[in-house]
Amino acid sequence: ANNFFLLAGPCAIEGEDMALRIAEKVVSITDKLEIPYVFKGSFKKANRSRIDSFTGIGDEKALKILRKVSETFKVPTVTDIHEVSDANIAAEYVDVLQIPAFLVRQTDLVVAAAKTGKTINLKKGQFMSPESMKHAATKVTECDNEQVMLTDRGTMFGYQDMIVDFRGIPTMREFAPTVLDVTHSLQQPNQSSGVTGGRPDMIETIARAGVVNKVDGLFIETHFDPANAKSDGANMLDLKHLEKLLSNLVAIRKVANQL
Amino acid sequence: ANNFFLLAGPCAIEGEDMALRIAEKVVSITDKLEIPYVFKGSFKKANRSRIDSFTGIGDEKALKILRKVSETFKVPTVTDIHEVSDANIAAEYVDVLQIPAFLVRQTDLVVAAAKTGKTINLKKGQFMSPESMKHAATKVTECDNEQVMLTDRGTMFGYQDMIVDFRGIPTMREFAPTVLDVTHSLQQPNQSSGVTGGRPDMIETIARAGVVNKVDGLFIETHFDPANAKSDGANMLDLKHLEKLLSNLVAIRKVANQL
Amino acid sequence: ANNFFLLAGPCAIEGEDMALRIAEKVVSITDKLEIPYVFKGSFKKANRSRIDSFTGIGDEKALKILRKVSETFKVPTVTDIHEVSDANIAAEYVDVLQIPAFLVRQTDLVVAAAKTGKTINLKKGQFMSPESMKHAATKVTECDNEQVMLTDRGTMFGYQDMIVDFRGIPTMREFAPTVLDVTHSLQQPNQSSGVTGGRPDMIETIARAGVVNKVDGLFIETHFDPANAKSDGANMLDLKHLEKLLSNLVAIRKVANQL
Amino acid sequence: ANNFFLLAGPCAIEGEDMALRIAEKVVSITDKLEIPYVFKGSFKKANRSRIDSFTGIGDEKALKILRKVSETFKVPTVTDIHEVSDANIAAEYVDVLQIPAFLVRQTDLVVAAAKTGKTINLKKGQFMSPESMKHAATKVTECDNEQVMLTDRGTMFGYQDMIVDFRGIPTMREFAPTVLDVTHSLQQPNQSSGVTGGRPDMIETIARAGVVNKVDGLFIETHFDPANAKSDGANMLDLKHLEKLLSNLVAIRKVANQL
Repeated sequence: ANNFFLLAGPCAIEGEDMALRIAEKVVSITDKLEIPYVFKGSFKKANRSRIDSFTGIGDEKALKILRKVSETFKVPTVTDIHEVSDANIAAEYVDVLQIPAFLVRQTDLVVAAAKTGKTINLKKGQFMSPESMKHAATKVTECDNEQVMLTDRGTMFGYQDMIVDFRGIPTMREFAPTVLDVTHSLQQPNQSSGVTGGRPDMIETIARAGVVNKVDGLFIETHFDPANAKSDGANMLDLKHLEKLLSNLVAIRKVANQL
Repeated sequence: ANNFFLLAGPCAIEGEDMALRIAEKVVSITDKLEIPYVFKGSFKKANRSRIDSFTGIGDEKALKILRKVSETFKVPTVTDIHEVSDANIAAEYVDVLQIPAFLVRQTDLVVAAAKTGKTINLKKGQFMSPESMKHAATKVTECDNEQVMLTDRGTMFGYQDMIVDFRGIPTMREFAPTVLDVTHSLQQPNQSSGVTGGRPDMIETIARAGVVNKVDGLFIETHFDPANAKSDGANMLDLKHLEKLLSNLVAIRKVANQL
Repeated sequence: ANNFFLLAGPCAIEGEDMALRIAEKVVSITDKLEIPYVFKGSFKKANRSRIDSFTGIGDEKALKILRKVSETFKVPTVTDIHEVSDANIAAEYVDVLQIPAFLVRQTDLVVAAAKTGKTINLKKGQFMSPESMKHAATKVTECDNEQVMLTDRGTMFGYQDMIVDFRGIPTMREFAPTVLDVTHSLQQPNQSSGVTGGRPDMIETIARAGVVNKVDGLFIETHFDPANAKSDGANMLDLKHLEKLLSNLVAIRKVANQL
Repeated sequence: ANNFFLLAGPCAIEGEDMALRIAEKVVSITDKLEIPYVFKGSFKKANRSRIDSFTGIGDEKALKILRKVSETFKVPTVTDIHEVSDANIAAEYVDVLQIPAFLVRQTDLVVAAAKTGKTINLKKGQFMSPESMKHAATKVTECDNEQVMLTDRGTMFGYQDMIVDFRGIPTMREFAPTVLDVTHSLQQPNQSSGVTGGRPDMIETIARAGVVNKVDGLFIETHFDPANAKSDGANMLDLKHLEKLLSNLVAIRKVANQL
């Protein structure tokens, strides 16, 4: 009790086998560490830098895999939606609907998600202040849906860097439960290759700073083989490091809870 | 010939009368100054800061007004789209489909727009470098649509300010004709009120800097009464100042063309 | 052992009585918590926003107070220098010479400080990357002075905000022992009043994030009555909160040391 | 009349011959174009990134070369100072004392410069807003010296980029005559090499944007052979391009003067 919860999984659902294998591994770790776990996977990737980037294996196919993960391991699931029409479709398969950071200002999309009655995870735009997320959260609650949480995934700092403003954690926690998206916060966008870079060596640094400040949840993209993942390989956590990372963070959280 | 073109109009189509009155006024000015003119109006406003912000008068009603403006004054029109399903609908009514800055990374949306065969105006994300717009433009041209233009509408600078990086003008002109969105570049986002602020006193400063650097087009939101406009009142240009502004800019452009 | 050390004191030496009272209070707390303590006080304030800002009580008078604090409480002291000629003068009175963030690129000043043989604390410029502090540290060590430490005091984020990039802690620790200047990192510069603002409510948030990441030292400006301090009142910590803050941080550090 | 003035020259005085050759060339161009000219050269470089960077040929030697340039070509000269004691020394040799951007918050230095009675050029800190330069200018005028001008040399944008906020030109012109430092505004600091980079290909873009907005002066570092200059080679203008550049800018200014 009183631990942080975890949203984790691969960036995109690349297939049933990889989804189940990743879920099984994360479940075994989070069970041991008593971390409430929500399996995360995108059923499509609509916001790619380049037209030749991977966009998915098919919407329904991916959503069915999310349901299978949920049924197999008895864990809730989260996926992100990009259009109004996605809301009801995805809501049939998952427990949490996530609004991507680029899209969090799209009122139509947020309202459509809120009206499904599912829990809504609003990612803070890379261009938004923590304070401005109050208005985003209100869009959900004014639809009579109190199940809203906020996620910080970093803020633009120049063209090629992101930075986490930790003043935002206590600020956003005043509005709703707040998640720190560790892996996306370490992206390095606008690289000349057209492929987003990252700093996975800094995952534990950023995660510790969030947990010691009592962030409600963590969001971590993880994969057995980040270098060969079909998206976001540059910043995902190698799954082999997850247990040690979470174990350290749980120890930190126990102290933070006593202060 | 060799003048800049102008995308201008109100932020949102608030009604037929206001659209026609604004168009009439701008047409009379641009005819005199020999500026190619495209009437701009949003048929819905999906990306509002607050849930109680104005979102539109009804999609079809607004689109029909855009068509009426076009037929009445023999000018092309531009509107912005927010979802894949908007693309074909809007394409029936307007000449240019615009992808909003927050949405320019949504590959599905850009591709749907490109496939209509209309001219596509891609706004540079406030979180994107000028160089990264090359990949955005490629998403259009790889759909066999060469009619693409790029628009700079400023870049995030801290939480509450935008800044125009003029190095981006020659950079983006290597990829496609480039427009400078003068009024949105002067927004001041993340204000504590939840309503975006602006610096309309700096419109001519920014516009001159673009025109002297041979930007291909200008984008200016304008209204007879910005203070009472239903959206973006803080940064629109009062229509009464448009003629003097454009007249100055045309003089600057004539010199720039000779250098 | 293995605790963080603390550089703390008022922004400026306003007089002997206030310096001794602050030192006495901090010493009593750090003795109890086993935190190695260095008393901090500026003997002059050369870098003020406005010409009518407080600049000091007289250089020699202030330096003698620093010496008296050291002798009275058996603690080392640190002060900042602004010109080459300050280096030898200040070195007669204090143990650590600090180079202000605005001045850390002044090679002459850094070299003059290094040549005194005193420990040198180099503040990262608000305009510098953590990586670039490697070159600053080298300026000291190439003067045959290995006693160098680095201090992060935040990075400019837009005009009116600072942000701490926690990726910088492990980065700078590869070059030298690294201090987190908690109170200056929470400044809000370029306020229209000409007086720098601050966010003292976020002091513990930032300090926790540093300590859990094993920063070597903390820098905290503190005063019995920040609202009436002659400089930096907007971001100093009220001394009455120091014990609880440090007590929490020591508990966090104990866990971090075990991970 | 009513043209912009020009501060130009090499970054550092590397020797008498190079200074005279550069001055001769610039004088011949500015005479033809009727541009008031001030020869610029640093007599020492105190603010280098790395300890092994070039710092100068000797203070007095360099100052005497500045005087010789002035006497030979009947032009005023400007140099930058770094410490209080530099003010009176440099004031014996040059007409304008310049306060470097990193040092513009050092009240002692600004006051010492102001008291020489020379014209003072205050560079806006890379970390300062245009509005905050009002307080800097006041430090000079309160010393009964009305001869003050302000120079924008760009603002930090992330770690490795600078950006010119052109809203700052009209803002700062309300406080004092305002100069745009074109070449330093195009620096790219914090490069991993420890040597500042640059974008000299963008010099004309930035200069045009300033001149069309009636900036009072331009500041351009130029050298016969930038690649072999002893400092700032990455962003200086090759002298062979100066005449064409200034000729274009004069044409733009003539139009701007008529608007």
